[in-house]
Amino acid sequence: MKVKNLVGERFKERPSDCVVDSHALMVRGGYIKQVANGIFSLFPPARRVTQKIEQIIREEMDRIDGQEVLFPVVLPGSLWMESGRYQSIDNTLARFDDRNGTPMVLGMTHEEAAVQLVREYASTYNRYPFMIYQIQTKFRDEARPRAGLIRVREFTMKDAYSFHTSQEDLEAYYARCYRAYERIYARAGAPQVIAVKSDSGMMGGSVSHEYMLLTDIGEDSIVICPECGYRANMEAAENIVGATRAEDMPLTKVATPDKKTIEEVVEYLHGDTLHSVKAVVYQTNAEDKFVVAFLRGDLEVNETKLTNYLGENIHPAVVTEDSPVVAGFIGPIGLDPSVKVVFDASLKGSNGLTCGANEADYHYTGLDMERDVPGAVFTDIAKAFEGGICPSCGKPHLTISRGIEVGNIFQLGTKYSKSMNMTYTDADGNTQIPIMGCYGIGVGRLAASIAEASHDKFGPIWPISIAPWSVEVCCLRADDPQTKKISEDLYQALENAGVDTLYDDRDIRPGAMFSDADLLGAPVRVIVSPKNLANGEIEISTRDKSIQVKVPVADALDKTREIIKTLQDRIDETVPESI
Amino acid sequence: MKVKNLVGERFKERPSDCVVDSHALMVRGGYIKQVANGIFSLFPPARRVTQKIEQIIREEMDRIDGQEVLFPVVLPGSLWMESGRYQSIDNTLARFDDRNGTPMVLGMTHEEAAVQLVREYASTYNRYPFMIYQIQTKFRDEARPRAGLIRVREFTMKDAYSFHTSQEDLEAYYARCYRAYERIYARAGAPQVIAVKSDSGMMGGSVSHEYMLLTDIGEDSIVICPECGYRANMEAAENIVGATRAEDMPLTKVATPDKKTIEEVVEYLHGDTLHSVKAVVYQTNAEDKFVVAFLRGDLEVNETKLTNYLGENIHPAVVTEDSPVVAGFIGPIGLDPSVKVVFDASLKGSNGLTCGANEADYHYTGLDMERDVPGAVFTDIAKAFEGGICPSCGKPHLTISRGIEVGNIFQLGTKYSKSMNMTYTDADGNTQIPIMGCYGIGVGRLAASIAEASHDKFGPIWPISIAPWSVEVCCLRADDPQTKKISEDLYQALENAGVDTLYDDRDIRPGAMFSDADLLGAPVRVIVSPKNLANGEIEISTRDKSIQVKVPVADALDKTREIIKTLQDRIDETVPESI
Repeated sequence: MKVKNLVGERFKERPSDCVVDSHALMVRGGYIKQVANGIFSLFPPARRVTQKIEQIIREEMDRIDGQEVLFPVVLPGSLWMESGRYQSIDNTLARFDDRNGTPMVLGMTHEEAAVQLVREYASTYNRYPFMIYQIQTKFRDEARPRAGLIRVREFTMKDAYSFHTSQEDLEAYYARCYRAYERIYARAGAPQVIAVKSDSGMMGGSVSHEYMLLTDIGEDSIVICPECGYRANMEAAENIVGATRAEDMPLTKVATPDKKTIEEVVEYLHGDTLHSVKAVVYQTNAEDKFVVAFLRGDLEVNETKLTNYLGENIHPAVVTEDSPVVAGFIGPIGLDPSVKVVFDASLKGSNGLTCGANEADYHYTGLDMERDVPGAVFTDIAKAFEGGICPSCGKPHLTISRGIEVGNIFQLGTKYSKSMNMTYTDADGNTQIPIMGCYGIGVGRLAASIAEASHDKFGPIWPISIAPWSVEVCCLRADDPQTKKISEDLYQALENAGVDTLYDDRDIRPGAMFSDADLLGAPVRVIVSPKNLANGEIEISTRDKSIQVKVPVADALDKTREIIKTLQDRIDETVPESI
Repeated sequence: MKVKNLVGERFKERPSDCVVDSHALMVRGGYIKQVANGIFSLFPPARRVTQKIEQIIREEMDRIDGQEVLFPVVLPGSLWMESGRYQSIDNTLARFDDRNGTPMVLGMTHEEAAVQLVREYASTYNRYPFMIYQIQTKFRDEARPRAGLIRVREFTMKDAYSFHTSQEDLEAYYARCYRAYERIYARAGAPQVIAVKSDSGMMGGSVSHEYMLLTDIGEDSIVICPECGYRANMEAAENIVGATRAEDMPLTKVATPDKKTIEEVVEYLHGDTLHSVKAVVYQTNAEDKFVVAFLRGDLEVNETKLTNYLGENIHPAVVTEDSPVVAGFIGPIGLDPSVKVVFDASLKGSNGLTCGANEADYHYTGLDMERDVPGAVFTDIAKAFEGGICPSCGKPHLTISRGIEVGNIFQLGTKYSKSMNMTYTDADGNTQIPIMGCYGIGVGRLAASIAEASHDKFGPIWPISIAPWSVEVCCLRADDPQTKKISEDLYQALENAGVDTLYDDRDIRPGAMFSDADLLGAPVRVIVSPKNLANGEIEISTRDKSIQVKVPVADALDKTREIIKTLQDRIDETVPESI
């Protein structure tokens, strides 16, 4: 491909609407163009990157016995009514009526379609286990698309669905898929992606993992124990804290005029946040019922854990004068009985605590949970924190990192098979419900995340396995016949050798040519210039600056291929064995 | 792939809802499953066929300098308002409002998206010409989906868009694309696909061709001259007839009580249809204005040509007592002046004609067009017919065939670039509007059409270039250790040699195994049975029955590969050179 024919423009200025580097570079490099909020067209360089990623994914899915299928983008609403998700999912699910008035949806994930496809086929036990997958467009009407391809409304996704006759079989397959994912990220040049335990959210099921690419611009918080390797998404991370103990004190109501925040109260009473009780007020989505979460003053509520405990969705409360709580002075004693109360495990066995007195301008001191709130039930609803105790090894060195979720795997259980009446006959002739797993990777997001993880201020530094082109030949003086001819010959020789090569023979300044080359990010750059040719040499370097050599013209082809192999070998060394 | 693990079921009974053979076979063979009316999921065999077709298309598009991009499925309505198609296309265009109330559409074709992508890039003449294409999902809310994948609502399409600075350049590129399409169909094993001139319809533009796979189940009528090779879609085919002459007769009003049809009138008056004038009444869609088309009694109106002539859409008239026409007795003389009249070229210079008298129960005889309807303007609005005159060579041997449209190419002109304000600066600094071409192929329809063109009652006979698997190894006695081992070894050897192979080692009757093999349609079948092994032989045959041999076990691998090559060579011989 000649750069001069390549559709798409490259430019210097960082677009003002790009907050994230990878987004800015992919716009500046002519990779993507926004069509609507969170909806993009891909120019050839981005399409090439995503195709290479798709092929890696396909090979790894096939390696674990996946069978590629294709589900529709447009699905009948009735199918989603079967699973109940038509009703339960908010307007993230795009809905429309077709010409006959039939409700349709745009697939945001394809569990229903997967069950529909195999429901009749998989009616006896000897058809199990199997896994089907597709690489297809999805649409999720996200409220806040951001960061270019990282959070979009329309995207290409690989989604896979496995079907099993026992939990053990699901778990064994899940382990294979877990490894396949590690291989995919390693092969795509992102071995730093880590798997973390996650909350299953709307997908149902129990065990699940997210694959996280660690980067400061990530939206997710990840809890990591550097001692034992424990890793979990913040949403799923256990928080372990011991009881806060103090001298026995009587429960005493004290005036705290206008002191509403923990900090104000603690300062006013000369106490400390560890010995205070924080109250966070929510309302249930269904009935607007009030829920108060109590936890140690320095902790934050993990709303996912709270929601899972309650078994229903909640939102931050709107507290008015008519509410059954007194904002700023809420405590466990004397609270209106209509309010649902949840105690975090951090309060268990604690005493000497300050808490609200459910009366304007008053708090209690000396609260002893066992003594003053007998029968209280405690559960873990707090966020893990930097320096917290690892739930796996018990050492207090937890760290919190930011990450982008670049894939996820779920043990779904029977959520979809049961609701959609998928059954099979077992060896004894009994009717059983199959157990499912599902496994997703967003292709465009992975591409953008890798660009985020691997770039400099000049452009993306693509791993050779997914780079739009492996090599770029730069003819530095297109007006010089010898330079032009040698460049051209080398370009042809590389193409003939099956190397995907970009060729820049524009008559422009070297600086402008290199700027474009940096943006297009070919891992290997071959520079043909009159200056080097005067010494009979060609310069070959890598985008990541790890290699820079000058070789005789006659050796240029072989040396280029050798460097390609070196870069590929470096990636291959990071790829774990499949299981 | 082992048949026993292959997801999807094969069965014998023809599904009652399948009118067309290819549809029935693709359901019976476990290729497709309906999800909603005109919306299908693809099982692995169909996905494999479509992937092979996609790869052939991709290679041919790249060969003519196409650059692969990806446009979104979901597009903002505002983009389609720019081109005017948001307003002009009926409910075939699926529309919905996103979560913010913004109108969105599902792309049924991507001219708007193509212009949006390159509008800024292609702002100077030296960026031209270029072609971009994608292979992506489309949705068209068709009123009457039918015949499995042949007419669906959701489908995968390759759509390409080229941009030019002159009509000559477009035409030169159009010729290259025309040839690329011929190569695609030939490589996919359908060399019988022919290009026909077509009407451009809603795409705008002037010159266009459709690629037709001739088959009785096709929805399109194609006019072919066996003498000179002239080919056109019925919608676009010129109809040439000379004047109908008779003795001079005076115009005479005659009573024709209750004789309303041409046949009744002709019989009653002892005339003939060639000497009668047929009147067909329409109303315009916009204002319900009446339009009467007059043509020779034996001809049919070509509504596409009539619409193009009128420049507005029409529908068959609803004639009541209040209408300005008298049904059954409409003629050119004395017709209400509010009625728009169109005369077909077949009437030009004709005389001795019978026509309605615009009065109940009366006709005229002896109509002489020149004498009685002076100043009439004639235009070609009649359908071509079997035995008609070829507009190219003038010989009266036209034939009418049925075909499925499996692709189309259009010279779009400036329809989209102009309405969407795409311009470029020419070498002289003047602002110009680029000229576009567009080029489509439906992938699933092509797969189904080839199955339709090439099948027997047992299953599809896939060309080896697009077959789901090239080879199937049938182990006829899985319970016999020697048979099983030799089958298994051969399967492994073929896979190791990179041959995509299906392997059936189920312990079932040979008849059942062959039925499934017929449905899955692998072009080469390798049969390992105790009977042949007793002679040290393995049987190899082709699905199309052209080859059947027995070879020593040791030669089976080489012979299989040789037969694969033979089948591929037969296809390659039909592929024209690219230009």
